[in-house]
Amino acid sequence: MSVVIVGTVGIDDIATPTGQVSRVLGGSGTYAALAARLFAPTALVSVVGTDFPSDHRRLLEGRGVDLAGLDVVEGETFRWGGRYHEDLNTRDTEFVELNVVTEFTPRIPATNADYIFVGNIEPGIQLSVMEQLDPAAYVATDSMDHWIHGQSAELAEVFRRSTLVVLNDQEARMFSRESRVPKAVGPILALGPQAVVVKLGEYGAVLAHGGEWFSAPGYPLPEVVDPTGAGDAFAGAMLASLAEAGAIDGADLRRAVVYGSVAASFTVEAFGVERLAAVTREDVEARYAEFKELVAF
Amino acid sequence: MSVVIVGTVGIDDIATPTGQVSRVLGGSGTYAALAARLFAPTALVSVVGTDFPSDHRRLLEGRGVDLAGLDVVEGETFRWGGRYHEDLNTRDTEFVELNVVTEFTPRIPATNADYIFVGNIEPGIQLSVMEQLDPAAYVATDSMDHWIHGQSAELAEVFRRSTLVVLNDQEARMFSRESRVPKAVGPILALGPQAVVVKLGEYGAVLAHGGEWFSAPGYPLPEVVDPTGAGDAFAGAMLASLAEAGAIDGADLRRAVVYGSVAASFTVEAFGVERLAAVTREDVEARYAEFKELVAF
Repeated sequence: MSVVIVGTVGIDDIATPTGQVSRVLGGSGTYAALAARLFAPTALVSVVGTDFPSDHRRLLEGRGVDLAGLDVVEGETFRWGGRYHEDLNTRDTEFVELNVVTEFTPRIPATNADYIFVGNIEPGIQLSVMEQLDPAAYVATDSMDHWIHGQSAELAEVFRRSTLVVLNDQEARMFSRESRVPKAVGPILALGPQAVVVKLGEYGAVLAHGGEWFSAPGYPLPEVVDPTGAGDAFAGAMLASLAEAGAIDGADLRRAVVYGSVAASFTVEAFGVERLAAVTREDVEARYAEFKELVAF
Repeated sequence: MSVVIVGTVGIDDIATPTGQVSRVLGGSGTYAALAARLFAPTALVSVVGTDFPSDHRRLLEGRGVDLAGLDVVEGETFRWGGRYHEDLNTRDTEFVELNVVTEFTPRIPATNADYIFVGNIEPGIQLSVMEQLDPAAYVATDSMDHWIHGQSAELAEVFRRSTLVVLNDQEARMFSRESRVPKAVGPILALGPQAVVVKLGEYGAVLAHGGEWFSAPGYPLPEVVDPTGAGDAFAGAMLASLAEAGAIDGADLRRAVVYGSVAASFTVEAFGVERLAAVTREDVEARYAEFKELVAF
């Protein structure tokens, strides 16, 4: 089965305590697609401006990402700049220039839209994507604090129509107004998705599904270079691993959460997409085996 | 094999967002001993004042804790009062009255001191305990921010003479001046202990040992009533599980970390020692099995 990723493609400036890069390939859709392509044929639905560098396009195509759904619109590509604090767990957004993203009307290809990740975009646009899908499609969604605060009713509708909701712990707590993650998943599951995954950053991720709870550890990296995109890579890898499995039971979901964690752990090892884009399936399987060792008792 | 616990025995006032209790049995030694007794014969070495309620003494004795090493000194028992914040992850100490603890000179029984937990007390007293031990004894130690700031050289000597060091993530980071846990364990291991465990609160615990890394999940409790003593119960259960195993290899340590997590998860389910004191070995094994399910993939 193949995968469709809907999300942003952008040009990022990133500063961390150890270095900085400018005008690198970024965006939630980019990270999700570069992780997803490790598991299943992946198409990216997004928009860029006429200034989008051909090198960035070639990088995605070179990793097998189908760019037929990448619209090119007159104007400038989405731009984001962020600066991470000393502990790398928090960051300041230095600028966001939406540019051509304001004209983004995702069109989902009729074929191969069985597994779809609708990344963190305005809930109204997420719903417009969902309306284009076969009701049997497996739909994973993400969001962020901005939409939780401003459009929680629309977001609830997004979750209601999702098969899988992937949030970080702060977002899950905020949406459900519960201080503990095991309680915060309740109101989200009650809306209807089959599963909720809560990403815990360096502490791994947890999965709530069918009355069961699964906990994946954080990978013990001594050094994190750049956390940008880790959550998107997680979601892309997780969904594509489910697409590869075809049928979705608890064991598939648990395995997919670990694959998501593997992809996220590679992503943070270098700036931008540098490491993630270089990773092979063999690298993934080797680290997956390490995750098994990590929790064995 | 049996276990000796060296730590405080006190009388606590505890307030949380959901309730409060006053003059309940507390102290690091109490929690550690009540967890340890689930796995091995346990002796508690500590000091109380002549005001120490006989009910508290009977509770410990009733759970099989050997109190021959519990000195009774003219004066008042150690008192602590704490108030937890809304998220239960942080607390304010409202008062500390050391009282008879200032006269604490731990005397370790010559017999059955093969596995010993030297809880969070002044590093000089920890060292005086270590000088009384057989060099082959298995020694687990704990500490806190106060000693890390004020007596880091003495504390380094404590860790040098320890077999196992158990800290929380904040303490490990502070001692090693490293922001990431996988890096913070390095300087502690370099001092000589065979293993370092870092407790991550709701996110579980990690173990570094012999070049390996083990990650135990947090137990997904929807409600935490009172976190007091969870870390001490963790350490007591962990050490006593090692004493029960007798020989210490990587598999024993991993199992012991999970038993520590099990004991901690019970501890926080009620105020003070209420839940921990009622737990049976059968309860422990049932939850241990749940921990296995929690991480299976």
